[in-house]
Amino acid sequence: MSKALPRRSENYSEWYNEIVKRAGLAENSAVRGCMVIKPYGYAIWEKMQRALDDMFKATGHQNAYFPLFVPKSFLEKEEEHAEGFAKECAVVTHYRLKNNPDGKGLVVDPAAKLEEELIIRPTSEAVIWNTYKSWIQSWRDLPLLINQWCNIVRWEMRTRLFLRTTEFLWQEGHTAHATEQEAIEETERMLGVYATFAEDWIALPVIKGLKSPNERFAGAVETYCIEALMQDGKALQAGTSHFLGQNFARSFDVKFVNKENQLEYAWATSWGVSTRLIGGLIMAHSDDNGLVLPPKLAPIQVVIVPIYKTPEDLAKISERVGSIVGELRSRDISVKFDDDDQQRSGWKFAEYELKGVPVRLGIGMRDLENGTIEVARRDNLTKESRPLEGIADHITLLLDEIQANIYGRALEFRVNNTFRVDTWDEFKEQIEIGGFILAHWDGTAETEEKIKNETKATIRCIPLNAPDEPGKCVYTGEPSNKRVVFARAY
Amino acid sequence: MSKALPRRSENYSEWYNEIVKRAGLAENSAVRGCMVIKPYGYAIWEKMQRALDDMFKATGHQNAYFPLFVPKSFLEKEEEHAEGFAKECAVVTHYRLKNNPDGKGLVVDPAAKLEEELIIRPTSEAVIWNTYKSWIQSWRDLPLLINQWCNIVRWEMRTRLFLRTTEFLWQEGHTAHATEQEAIEETERMLGVYATFAEDWIALPVIKGLKSPNERFAGAVETYCIEALMQDGKALQAGTSHFLGQNFARSFDVKFVNKENQLEYAWATSWGVSTRLIGGLIMAHSDDNGLVLPPKLAPIQVVIVPIYKTPEDLAKISERVGSIVGELRSRDISVKFDDDDQQRSGWKFAEYELKGVPVRLGIGMRDLENGTIEVARRDNLTKESRPLEGIADHITLLLDEIQANIYGRALEFRVNNTFRVDTWDEFKEQIEIGGFILAHWDGTAETEEKIKNETKATIRCIPLNAPDEPGKCVYTGEPSNKRVVFARAY
Repeated sequence: MSKALPRRSENYSEWYNEIVKRAGLAENSAVRGCMVIKPYGYAIWEKMQRALDDMFKATGHQNAYFPLFVPKSFLEKEEEHAEGFAKECAVVTHYRLKNNPDGKGLVVDPAAKLEEELIIRPTSEAVIWNTYKSWIQSWRDLPLLINQWCNIVRWEMRTRLFLRTTEFLWQEGHTAHATEQEAIEETERMLGVYATFAEDWIALPVIKGLKSPNERFAGAVETYCIEALMQDGKALQAGTSHFLGQNFARSFDVKFVNKENQLEYAWATSWGVSTRLIGGLIMAHSDDNGLVLPPKLAPIQVVIVPIYKTPEDLAKISERVGSIVGELRSRDISVKFDDDDQQRSGWKFAEYELKGVPVRLGIGMRDLENGTIEVARRDNLTKESRPLEGIADHITLLLDEIQANIYGRALEFRVNNTFRVDTWDEFKEQIEIGGFILAHWDGTAETEEKIKNETKATIRCIPLNAPDEPGKCVYTGEPSNKRVVFARAY
Repeated sequence: MSKALPRRSENYSEWYNEIVKRAGLAENSAVRGCMVIKPYGYAIWEKMQRALDDMFKATGHQNAYFPLFVPKSFLEKEEEHAEGFAKECAVVTHYRLKNNPDGKGLVVDPAAKLEEELIIRPTSEAVIWNTYKSWIQSWRDLPLLINQWCNIVRWEMRTRLFLRTTEFLWQEGHTAHATEQEAIEETERMLGVYATFAEDWIALPVIKGLKSPNERFAGAVETYCIEALMQDGKALQAGTSHFLGQNFARSFDVKFVNKENQLEYAWATSWGVSTRLIGGLIMAHSDDNGLVLPPKLAPIQVVIVPIYKTPEDLAKISERVGSIVGELRSRDISVKFDDDDQQRSGWKFAEYELKGVPVRLGIGMRDLENGTIEVARRDNLTKESRPLEGIADHITLLLDEIQANIYGRALEFRVNNTFRVDTWDEFKEQIEIGGFILAHWDGTAETEEKIKNETKATIRCIPLNAPDEPGKCVYTGEPSNKRVVFARAY
């Protein structure tokens, strides 16, 4: 038996790292800042992808694929965009290796230097809008609703598995519209899709809001985001949706003939979520025993562990379990019967607890005689004996209940850790404790910067549903008409 | 109406390029050798992925994700592997751009030079076997059955959409086993999966065989392949499955304790198919009117085109069509009702023919009165009037029939274009005409090379099911005990 996990209350950061590692989700690779997503972690990503992809298609989007490489000159075209990403670009300069003339191994062939350097995409606005130029001529070509699933590289100095890695997987939507209004509606629609996915699938309550100008995506007119609160009181940006105005259309000269027969630049949006969501899922729900997975994203939703002494007993249990497995699978519930005889049942119990399997069923000879089965919930660690008769119905309902309970718990946590703060002293005190701080802000980048420098807190968002409420900036005392959300963030 | 496609008989290569372009499958990007896969082409790839992924999972494999970057020193470790890929490697040398001190734009920051260059993966054996080192300790950790869906970069000098591009999408399976026998069985099992997928889904008959040593994957002990014949008489390698022996385990020091408690190197396989399959699909089945898609991989399986004069007529047709659409969708048939009134029905007929939609239904006011509908097949361009009653049943069967017919036609083509050749004169003559040539070969790399230089024909494979048949090498007259398959190839 391996030693216990670090406790959240003692070392949250180590607790997170150990869960990622021990549950078999991911590990650091030999390549600086890049992770290996292990099968169990990747299975969660596949479930996320499938659900999101269905939602994108239901809102009229199609998938496509654009090149990994962005010529340097493309990146330069939108100036703010270039500024924002220049410092974290992996650059391809050569296209060939050759045998080392001075000895063993391979060296870069200086004769194979590229005329123009290629950037590994840090995001694909540049390469995509360069393509849209030939796809968009008339209002009839619009809206153009495209999504791409791919890998992205941003050279990060400090990396954390899932939360911030040099290479990560994501989806990026890139749409073009005939009017500003339509593009803004699309930006908001996809923010809504993200919020629904976060809440209904990850069981993660989020605040929808706008970023302050300082925190906007490089090249955007407006950045919308969803922000979630982690158990250590820090915020996680879980997804962003950008209204790009006509910035990229102008930079890449994408014009269309509108219904009035006039040439006009197209209006753009882009929006993305990434494997970072897996980090958010882990940090929001898990406990000192390991991972807690919301049933809708759990690769294994139900595990059945037989408790037996002899092969004959196992045969009897297996026979009875077979029909339960069949019944659960026919309801699209993913179930594993773990009859591996290399491990004791106690070891298995701990293992599936660590791996966050939502429901564990234990069944022994006495259960068979009594017509019962032990049902253990991962979310609240309770167990009870249930009749075998009707167990599939019970589990179907239980999975929904667990999904709702995990969400409810996270929401309660957020409510209990959201604070209205009105004075600077209170602010400094609260930010050390953690949580979302609702405070007035005078709306200037200067104040935002000072608050960040003094407390490491950033404006996470200006909530879309924030009520009008006259007040004074918590830092300068200047007037403000609504509260914004401050927090320290991942 | 755009002008007709080039005809296959006149310019096969242009015909291919035009279909890819006009059917909206893909286009060349502004980045040398990289393609943009457009939504309609990507939808075919998604269908391929889903089917293959299900087959991989059914044979016990799990997906994972490994880094895009391969440190140069990793690539060097397996010598043949390094030799094989060194000349087509995209190399990352820097991780930052900076503002051009001499003027506008961005330049590579010389201060951000990597200590060790990173190669964009041309395949992932090196990075994966470096990881397996820590995953494999005991026979209990084996077999390790992992697959990865990702993008790959091989710097190609001459590129063709789908068939050969600098960046492409693929899957690569990488498995580790305790015994040589198990690894060989895995190699053959996955070759079988590929052959089944090619035949049952792409409707593409393939020959399963072994590559000659010259054509083996760099680092493999044995390369298995599936080879298909295109309509111009050239061969297409559609998938490969490699038995890697202990080569990578030795290079990356991956040892495990076997059941006899002894340290041993693990046995490896790798196998992959790529977006190249889309090129094969197009070239095998399409005709001078455009794309012909096998129903199982068609993004739209059935299109319904209303033929009407007035909005009232359209309303009546739409009402009747609604129930057909519902009934087809409930059978998981993808169907599009094209009631766009910007285009005439004649234009639509040509468009869906170009796009290879397997079944087109046309319905007008007279059909409504008569209770009939026109059913047009894309594969053989026939049409007939059918009763509306029971049309969903008819279409369900028809899609299967079309799938079978496309396969049958491709198989017939291959049979008619496979030639047993026994003399060198005959060989030289036949290779100009095209097709698969079954000929004796003396088994030497030297002869293979000479035949290639004189005729551009390569040994596509040594068929697994080739009967023993004593004969003489078509080139040298030396003895041979079975025929191999020669062809010119993509």
